[in-house]
Amino acid sequence: MSITTDKVLDSRANQVDPANIQFGKTYSDHMLVADCIDGIWQDPKIVPYGNISMSPATTFIHYGQSIFEGIKAYKNKEEEVSIFRPYDNWTRFNRSAERMAMPHVPEDIFIGGMKELVSLDRDWVPTSEGCSLYIRPFMFATDEFIGVKPAENFRFMIITSPAGAYYSKPTRIYVQKKYVRAFPGGIGFTKAAGNYGATMLPTLEIKNLNYDQILWTDAIEHKFVQEIGTMNVFFVLGNKVITPDLSEGTILAGVTRDSIIKLLKERGIIVEERPLSMQEIVDSYKKGEFREAFGAGTAAVIAPIAELFYEGETIYPASQEKWEISNWLKKELIDIRYGAVADRHHWMYKVC
Amino acid sequence: MSITTDKVLDSRANQVDPANIQFGKTYSDHMLVADCIDGIWQDPKIVPYGNISMSPATTFIHYGQSIFEGIKAYKNKEEEVSIFRPYDNWTRFNRSAERMAMPHVPEDIFIGGMKELVSLDRDWVPTSEGCSLYIRPFMFATDEFIGVKPAENFRFMIITSPAGAYYSKPTRIYVQKKYVRAFPGGIGFTKAAGNYGATMLPTLEIKNLNYDQILWTDAIEHKFVQEIGTMNVFFVLGNKVITPDLSEGTILAGVTRDSIIKLLKERGIIVEERPLSMQEIVDSYKKGEFREAFGAGTAAVIAPIAELFYEGETIYPASQEKWEISNWLKKELIDIRYGAVADRHHWMYKVC
Repeated sequence: MSITTDKVLDSRANQVDPANIQFGKTYSDHMLVADCIDGIWQDPKIVPYGNISMSPATTFIHYGQSIFEGIKAYKNKEEEVSIFRPYDNWTRFNRSAERMAMPHVPEDIFIGGMKELVSLDRDWVPTSEGCSLYIRPFMFATDEFIGVKPAENFRFMIITSPAGAYYSKPTRIYVQKKYVRAFPGGIGFTKAAGNYGATMLPTLEIKNLNYDQILWTDAIEHKFVQEIGTMNVFFVLGNKVITPDLSEGTILAGVTRDSIIKLLKERGIIVEERPLSMQEIVDSYKKGEFREAFGAGTAAVIAPIAELFYEGETIYPASQEKWEISNWLKKELIDIRYGAVADRHHWMYKVC
Repeated sequence: MSITTDKVLDSRANQVDPANIQFGKTYSDHMLVADCIDGIWQDPKIVPYGNISMSPATTFIHYGQSIFEGIKAYKNKEEEVSIFRPYDNWTRFNRSAERMAMPHVPEDIFIGGMKELVSLDRDWVPTSEGCSLYIRPFMFATDEFIGVKPAENFRFMIITSPAGAYYSKPTRIYVQKKYVRAFPGGIGFTKAAGNYGATMLPTLEIKNLNYDQILWTDAIEHKFVQEIGTMNVFFVLGNKVITPDLSEGTILAGVTRDSIIKLLKERGIIVEERPLSMQEIVDSYKKGEFREAFGAGTAAVIAPIAELFYEGETIYPASQEKWEISNWLKKELIDIRYGAVADRHHWMYKVC
């Protein structure tokens, strides 16, 4: 597999104001494009970022065979650029692909292509702490056919966008029981486009009630917490950290989630991956043992939860002043990513 | 609202072989495009069918805010072209739009645009019985932004494709309990792209077992029949025709489904819309009262079911030689569509 590169004549990287990076508003100079035609991956191309042309009958527009990943690259003080755990996203991308009847993307396209793309656009990787280059690999079905059937042709792409530090005040959460995000036997564990579109209306509705995010409950009993749609969720109850397990296939297996579990266990903190009911959280709250809650994902990294609205009541984690575990995790991840502490789990994949 | 038209210089309509029409392989000369920018619909344009250009960061590629409809236009012996129940599809399209946090498409764009497009491409409407012009309205979110949030800009389009008569031998059905299509609180009642992508792998798996289609069961107990993914489903048990009701929001409110219910009731046949369990169908089969079953949708119209594989057993409708109700419905719909009987329900919307 060889990657051909068509470089831009003039980089736009200097147009980015490092003090005011708006995620998703600017895309780096180049993008990667690779087509899979009748099961055969063609050589990837790196080309100037720009519009793509497609038939209006392109099947994914109509039937949603479309998946993506979110990954970040960081630049340390020595100006070295590394990507955080890209192999884990590659594995998950291919799990999404399988469930959506799409082909696996080989390592030399997904990882090799990403490495070459990020190296070429290294000037786009911000240097300030908390900033990163957000990497968006995605794949969609490209058959020009509006009959409902699994496609035979696909396009894989990577685009990147500089991302500023994600400072947000602690999140106000609405525990959702009317709408459902995912269900056993469905595609909740994948990063398929369709999982996200279905959450837009429920999100608008709770924003009108002045909440920031939805905490989804299970599809069957509406009792067990699931995830926040763009983040996994962790609860600190007493001396334990509890996060929903992945066994039902309704929750995304977050790479940040996995990193947090490993960091907490390494520090000797008890972590439980298991079904967690809202009732258990409420009971813990009433006993004064609900200490912290936070979302965890690539975009926000760690997002502390200020309150949860559940069945007409609001409950709050107790240690809001300290955010002991949330803050420690945030710092630990930053230190690993910017090289301030040893990368003892080999999470940083150096690209240039 | 005024529609501007950019006509092709040379029509491709004469390239279509009327005896060998392959659905979805050829698209008519023109397409309709209308953009909704910050909530304001722009004047629609009819332009030559061709590729569209979009940013790779276009939000629907990543997050699946994308919906569609399927409608058919027919040409009768007097060469008049009429569309079957377009207002019902318009209403349903806007219901899908609401659930997917997308704008309503106004009547003069959806219906008015369709009328003008089909009139212009009237030479593409096949004349033979069972043939039609398939009309595909669709809409997708066009913000150039990869943050997860409801979009503010949308594109509505209509493309059309001639469709041959849909002759298929009676369908072999696999009753699905492992995978789930839709669930209460989700988007199963919409024609959102994501509902279809999730069914591709389950469909491939049952095709490998030599079945044609999946009959989905409910997400919670896997007991109650739902739909066939591209068709609603009807069972003739004893002297009643039974089809699942729409109250859970997990089943598409098919326009063909509604037409069938009306035609059956008009003929004095008992129709029940209610939860229908596989156990009830099996019990009816054992008593010799399972007479017929068929799928109903815009593409296939009426697709008789030859057998159902359920929990290791195969069950068959009894009156396979006659297909009394299926054939009558098929003929009745054809007669209405091609003007052989009176259009007493006012289903045919004459365009030219």
